[in-house]
Amino acid sequence: MKNSERYQRGLDKLAKIDGEQGQKVIDSLADIAPDFAQYLIEFPFGDIYSRPGLDLKSREIAVVAALTALGNAAPQLKVHIHGALNVGCTEQEIVEVIMQMAVYAGFPAALNGLFAAKEVFAERGKVSNRGDGSL
Amino acid sequence: MKNSERYQRGLDKLAKIDGEQGQKVIDSLADIAPDFAQYLIEFPFGDIYSRPGLDLKSREIAVVAALTALGNAAPQLKVHIHGALNVGCTEQEIVEVIMQMAVYAGFPAALNGLFAAKEVFAERGKVSNRGDGSL
Amino acid sequence: MKNSERYQRGLDKLAKIDGEQGQKVIDSLADIAPDFAQYLIEFPFGDIYSRPGLDLKSREIAVVAALTALGNAAPQLKVHIHGALNVGCTEQEIVEVIMQMAVYAGFPAALNGLFAAKEVFAERGKVSNRGDGSL
Amino acid sequence: MKNSERYQRGLDKLAKIDGEQGQKVIDSLADIAPDFAQYLIEFPFGDIYSRPGLDLKSREIAVVAALTALGNAAPQLKVHIHGALNVGCTEQEIVEVIMQMAVYAGFPAALNGLFAAKEVFAERGKVSNRGDGSL
Amino acid sequence: MKNSERYQRGLDKLAKIDGEQGQKVIDSLADIAPDFAQYLIEFPFGDIYSRPGLDLKSREIAVVAALTALGNAAPQLKVHIHGALNVGCTEQEIVEVIMQMAVYAGFPAALNGLFAAKEVFAERGKVSNRGDGSL
Amino acid sequence: MKNSERYQRGLDKLAKIDGEQGQKVIDSLADIAPDFAQYLIEFPFGDIYSRPGLDLKSREIAVVAALTALGNAAPQLKVHIHGALNVGCTEQEIVEVIMQMAVYAGFPAALNGLFAAKEVFAERGKVSNRGDGSL
Repeated sequence: MKNSERYQRGLDKLAKIDGEQGQKVIDSLADIAPDFAQYLIEFPFGDIYSRPGLDLKSREIAVVAALTALGNAAPQLKVHIHGALNVGCTEQEIVEVIMQMAVYAGFPAALNGLFAAKEVFAERGKVSNRGDGSL
Repeated sequence: MKNSERYQRGLDKLAKIDGEQGQKVIDSLADIAPDFAQYLIEFPFGDIYSRPGLDLKSREIAVVAALTALGNAAPQLKVHIHGALNVGCTEQEIVEVIMQMAVYAGFPAALNGLFAAKEVFAERGKVSNRGDGSL
Repeated sequence: MKNSERYQRGLDKLAKIDGEQGQKVIDSLADIAPDFAQYLIEFPFGDIYSRPGLDLKSREIAVVAALTALGNAAPQLKVHIHGALNVGCTEQEIVEVIMQMAVYAGFPAALNGLFAAKEVFAERGKVSNRGDGSL
Repeated sequence: MKNSERYQRGLDKLAKIDGEQGQKVIDSLADIAPDFAQYLIEFPFGDIYSRPGLDLKSREIAVVAALTALGNAAPQLKVHIHGALNVGCTEQEIVEVIMQMAVYAGFPAALNGLFAAKEVFAERGKVSNRGDGSL
Repeated sequence: MKNSERYQRGLDKLAKIDGEQGQKVIDSLADIAPDFAQYLIEFPFGDIYSRPGLDLKSREIAVVAALTALGNAAPQLKVHIHGALNVGCTEQEIVEVIMQMAVYAGFPAALNGLFAAKEVFAERGKVSNRGDGSL
Repeated sequence: MKNSERYQRGLDKLAKIDGEQGQKVIDSLADIAPDFAQYLIEFPFGDIYSRPGLDLKSREIAVVAALTALGNAAPQLKVHIHGALNVGCTEQEIVEVIMQMAVYAGFPAALNGLFAAKEVFAERGKVSNRGDGSL
């Protein structure tokens, strides 16, 4: 199955969206549930993210919104804040999406989402060596 | 306070996004918590939806995603599926957003979101206008 | 066990807090899970509600807040709005508790809580008795 | 894809577990999101339920527990109470699973689960066949 | 806007309820979403907490209950356990509120709430006992 | 009350299911809410887990499923993964239960459940001194 077109399509999409964050998740499943890594590549990325009808940027906005609102999946929220930036969202757009969740899931959910974004923006600031100490 | 610029801005935004659905919510608060109707106009619509930095279509995608994922606010999900259509989302885009939630909140949440969308699309006559009575 | 002091204490407390609403819940369990009716009387009412250290009014404020915030137990929220009124909360206090949940669980949760309160207040005849349409 | 072994395996599993309830869900998706019906057959039923390593009865116990605890997917809970009975759970076992959720998700979640079970048992005629019309 | 009466009223209320914990939250938003800090002061504290009709102690009981039940906002729960103590709740009353949540949201939610309370009580015990101003 | 048959039955059941993990929870309540430790022993373990009608292995499958799906009680999920292993579940069965939750509560909930299982399996590997470094 790992040679299927669907698996390959999922792997490409995962790399495009989540970059090395996605690969880390896959790797971390290797010794506990390798089949689950395969499903994760195939269904969410090979099937859903590969569909036409909604651009990747809108898909990531939806995911950041949902994970902020649910408030019980902090690691995945951080992965998808990275993902949103990877597919073209600006930092400001992500902050706006998270702030909007104060209305629909309460201020604590939005606050925790903003602090996750702050961590992600800082990680990427370090990685991309902005060198100006901003953010 | 109801004459404030903020209240008026919220009222305009509410009308633009939620149309008559929004007004119904406001009206239904009149005899139980009229102040809450004012807050609803002022903070979500006067403050948050009125911010630059994210277009209304993306804001409604975020809200449809979050309410689908939370799964405990069916009336508000329907209002915001209307809202998403009002600000320019296509039916297909809304269906894609909701389907994506299967990955992040499970198939039951996505199914219930799709059935809400089906009701809203029917209410708006889009489906029944197809002339085949298939809904 | 149904003759135990703990069971009797729970039954008294249930009657005092939830009145006929509580008895209806107990009755509705008779043919599906009668033991669960017993646990419901013994643990929540015989143990928890019977503790000193927090007055019944504050306990009901806590319960109305939690059920509004969780948003997935509408029948129980209505029972406890009745309960809050039964132990001395005013309608205004209940409305304030529910409105406060907009901050902590979002506006949809608060809206659905307010509509539940509106139904309960109407059931109790407060609204229809006033004769002037105001709450 | 609908001719794939995976799709066919999913369809067989869906029929075995959910019976006509499952088919109704599939049918209801036909005019809103037919692709989602396909995913529902392929991933949950073709992939997950078809795995060795855990018997179907245990899988349905897990699902009834989770949906009772989440408390925001009443239609799917009812489908899976049917499913649990279809794959060999007794009514008593289902009642025990739901009662256990009082400990992990609270009494309201368990109560609403028990009332869902009561409806399902009645639909299947088990209770009404007792001949005393007591439900 | 920061000079408005509403903002000032919110700032005063925030200081009274959350003390230095609240200021820390405001400060931590400065470089990610300063507007959100303003909304947090204005809507929850300037509008909601400033309303008559429910005393501050009851409002904090409601918030501690809701955040314990939701179980997905540990930092905010700790801030509001501080807040409850700041506006006159006793440690015993807070423990009773949290224990009550075992009934409505399950034992795990109550346990995690009790452990949060234990941390807060210890932090305050250290502060007030040490006399050296260190936390 | 601590000498009651119910308390003793609960204590025995707790020891059988949760082993030293359960005792740690009880101990950690001693200085914050000792009565809650008693309730925890009496109601969940003395009443619910002690009921006939569902074997302990199925009860733990239900609990691992529910806590994975809820996603907001990581410490308790780990205790019950231990518990499931203690009453006869295999590591594979637990992994299957958690993977199944991807369908009902989303991939993030399942991923976080799998990582919790990975930690528990490693802890037990260390404790039982397998000496081969295998998971």
